[in-house]
Amino acid sequence: MPLIYDRVALIGLGLIASSMFWAIKRHRLAGEVTGYARTSATRETAREIGLCDRVCESAREAVEGADLVVLCVPVGAMGEVAQEIAPALKPGATLSDVGSVKRDVIAAVAPHLPEGVHFIPAHPIAGTEHSGPRAGFAELFEDRYCLIVPQEGSERDAVARLESFWQGMGALTEEMDAAHHDLVLAVTSHAPHLIAYTMVGVADDLRRVTDSEVIKYSAAGFRDFTRIAASDPTMWRDVFLHNKAATLEILGRFTEELFALQRAIRTGDGELLHDYFTRTRAIRRGIIEAGQDIDAPDFGRVKRD
Amino acid sequence: MPLIYDRVALIGLGLIASSMFWAIKRHRLAGEVTGYARTSATRETAREIGLCDRVCESAREAVEGADLVVLCVPVGAMGEVAQEIAPALKPGATLSDVGSVKRDVIAAVAPHLPEGVHFIPAHPIAGTEHSGPRAGFAELFEDRYCLIVPQEGSERDAVARLESFWQGMGALTEEMDAAHHDLVLAVTSHAPHLIAYTMVGVADDLRRVTDSEVIKYSAAGFRDFTRIAASDPTMWRDVFLHNKAATLEILGRFTEELFALQRAIRTGDGELLHDYFTRTRAIRRGIIEAGQDIDAPDFGRVKRD
Repeated sequence: MPLIYDRVALIGLGLIASSMFWAIKRHRLAGEVTGYARTSATRETAREIGLCDRVCESAREAVEGADLVVLCVPVGAMGEVAQEIAPALKPGATLSDVGSVKRDVIAAVAPHLPEGVHFIPAHPIAGTEHSGPRAGFAELFEDRYCLIVPQEGSERDAVARLESFWQGMGALTEEMDAAHHDLVLAVTSHAPHLIAYTMVGVADDLRRVTDSEVIKYSAAGFRDFTRIAASDPTMWRDVFLHNKAATLEILGRFTEELFALQRAIRTGDGELLHDYFTRTRAIRRGIIEAGQDIDAPDFGRVKRD
Repeated sequence: MPLIYDRVALIGLGLIASSMFWAIKRHRLAGEVTGYARTSATRETAREIGLCDRVCESAREAVEGADLVVLCVPVGAMGEVAQEIAPALKPGATLSDVGSVKRDVIAAVAPHLPEGVHFIPAHPIAGTEHSGPRAGFAELFEDRYCLIVPQEGSERDAVARLESFWQGMGALTEEMDAAHHDLVLAVTSHAPHLIAYTMVGVADDLRRVTDSEVIKYSAAGFRDFTRIAASDPTMWRDVFLHNKAATLEILGRFTEELFALQRAIRTGDGELLHDYFTRTRAIRRGIIEAGQDIDAPDFGRVKRD
């Protein structure tokens, strides 16, 4: 298969960018891959582990001559980075991102775009609780969805090329508009993360139950929350601040439902509880049938090589 | 190693009892293991898959001559079963259970106990989202904690024997009083389950986001909630109704915290959010260090053989 892009620049070298690099190399999707990270420590780590063909000392240097530039920084930093690199973008290049929020990112990035650059936001729905340049692995995107959010006037060829690129890394691609993306992610990601952070925070705060007890007896359910509550704090702070409306809407719905179930517990309404719990099983089956999780009962996770 | 009990009776043949049976056999912890399940369908399944040395047609028949009787039925059914089997319990036998709630179970079971029977409640902190007689596997309890809740006047020999039995199945044992057990489990299990059920219910109810979207994009965090929200509805209805006070207390704390974080999102208090999310990472590390989860980043679960 021919290269999809001659040169790709990755700005920000965390879990997503490092996974992209390994996937690009494994599947030979691009010629040179340049990279830039804000801190010299991250740039040094990247050089040490061979992450990127060339690690640059500035974002501008990294994007020079690139056919595809992917912003892989926290959502709150996208606008500033776009402003900095804008003058160095090659005419005809595609600028994309991997942020978990789309409306605010588009509003922050779009004003800086020079003429002749294709801006096509994207969001791979994949991640782990680990972060940083060492956390990446080539298989992260396999069988996961990558949502592509074309803008008014996005050229179809440029969109199709970006989709091929993500498909080349193993992802399934779908197009979606920014507002709907932000609502869907509020439900499937942002509200669940805030809830998990909250539950773990409550457990940590209780005086009458020690942290050691919480840890030892976590296999009873709590453990499932701690994985997502261990995600990168900066990334998640930015997600909540930049998808405020949709997240608060879903949390409002969540609180309403939680109160209804609490009342059922208080009044002893076993039938309501049983019906509710029966209904929620179906979604789990759907997720397994869709290949987004496996049905292994014992939670025996293993590392892939 | 000599047998720990000559004869064990398992009343209720779901995930826990079936896992116990396979673990007892693998580690040769008992001579004969009898079993009883309320429905004839479950009894037939048990006979078909060789679950229990002898599947009986009544709970009384199953417990006759048993040195250890373990109640493995939903928490709300414990009292009734205890009443039924009480006249058939062998003097000197130990009666135990595996319920996720201890105070209400003790209150329901204790009045039926005949003289000379040791009542020693217990609770293995282990499970999967699967239920029923086919869901069990011998490794379920390996490296998981089993909490033992001795009663006033429990003979130390009988308690030590029960602990050896659980240790023989691979579990770590600890003793705890019933009230503290119920609070610890409200934090590590009951509140997280209710919250997960609620979030999955909210996602299922939304008109503007389809179930198919929720399923496809679940890898972003939501998926972690669906596993525990797929647990057995009857078991969980009973848990909430029988650990009402502690569950409602923890849910009250949870709601308070959630409101504080929602306010931080609304007012744009990024520092509060960042600090909170940083704190919750530590608990995750503790769980991994304690061997209660593994650090595999990609969530690639596999079935054990």
